[in-house]
Amino acid sequence: MNNSPARLILIGGGTCSGKTTIAKAIGKRIFDLKSVIISHDNYYKDLGHLSPEDANRVNFDHPDSIDVDYLMQDVKLMLKGKAVNVPQYDFITHRRSEGTLCIANADVVILEGIFALYYPELITLSDLKIFVDTDADIRLARRIQRDTVERGFDVESVLLQYLETVKPSHQAFIDPSKKNADVIIPGDREFDKALYMLNAYLQYSLKTQ
Amino acid sequence: MNNSPARLILIGGGTCSGKTTIAKAIGKRIFDLKSVIISHDNYYKDLGHLSPEDANRVNFDHPDSIDVDYLMQDVKLMLKGKAVNVPQYDFITHRRSEGTLCIANADVVILEGIFALYYPELITLSDLKIFVDTDADIRLARRIQRDTVERGFDVESVLLQYLETVKPSHQAFIDPSKKNADVIIPGDREFDKALYMLNAYLQYSLKTQ
Repeated sequence: MNNSPARLILIGGGTCSGKTTIAKAIGKRIFDLKSVIISHDNYYKDLGHLSPEDANRVNFDHPDSIDVDYLMQDVKLMLKGKAVNVPQYDFITHRRSEGTLCIANADVVILEGIFALYYPELITLSDLKIFVDTDADIRLARRIQRDTVERGFDVESVLLQYLETVKPSHQAFIDPSKKNADVIIPGDREFDKALYMLNAYLQYSLKTQ
Repeated sequence: MNNSPARLILIGGGTCSGKTTIAKAIGKRIFDLKSVIISHDNYYKDLGHLSPEDANRVNFDHPDSIDVDYLMQDVKLMLKGKAVNVPQYDFITHRRSEGTLCIANADVVILEGIFALYYPELITLSDLKIFVDTDADIRLARRIQRDTVERGFDVESVLLQYLETVKPSHQAFIDPSKKNADVIIPGDREFDKALYMLNAYLQYSLKTQ
């Protein structure tokens, strides 16, 4: 498979819509193809030049918070099969450092994130655009669960962030990006059939090209 | 292919969402499989026992207007490969008569209609459930165009029907049936990629089963 350029699959959708679950499930299904999953969350802008107070004021639920140039550069290299070290982002220091995930010779690159279907440059490069559509209340319930249980935040701060930046960003940038999708997958029920279809698509299109 | 039961693909979505266009495009793509397209509009209830006044008062934008038992009986026969004469419905007399479309030995039966994802009996039988999602204003614009140009109605009567029965039915029955879909296809842009994927799915699942 290494002679042809890799395929880029974009998986967008709101917070806690099920993007990562679907990305992982696709990766598992296409076991005979080399696939990698990356998130645009690894490509937040390095804010080392800002004071901690200013850095904490940055809205990370806005598409401008991602270093799209850097992301694009890495994605282009990945699609050519070149080795790329995906950066790591430290949310305490707001600095980006070299990560440990090295990607080379992937057949399929799956890029997931709330803005995955937002940036036109990314869309142009992509082979397939998927939006995971899940009701807002289900997403909020999942987010409260995740942020309180897994990340140790209190409910009040989770709700404050949700209402102040997460929801407005969803309405302004994420929900409209659904229009860029080739297919929309409902994220609040089992999606076996959709996965089967995506697998069939990849097998068929990679093997008959 | 005739040894295995045929596959049933349901295509639902609002009025003028693009269901038939997508159904036809799928049918064309899978040229090496025998596919047929039917609409549940051929299975409206025969209202010959009602006076013309009463028949004209029936809401054809309600799921109860379809003779689901008859539809189910025919779909089950089609899936077994048996010959079926799809009925024809006469909107002037509100009577159903034997149609000229005879279906037998199909590999893939595509059933489209606004309520295709509404009836649980149909969903249970289906292999794949697709919802075509198109903005309401685009659908209204297309419907005005179709009903005035192709069907000779005046704009006023089209709008009256739209507001009185079409839109309420969409909100009550059709939009909620989106939740039953395996995949949702945006109907207001080109859907080549989605078609390619559906084709891959059918080729892959029929040939590797």
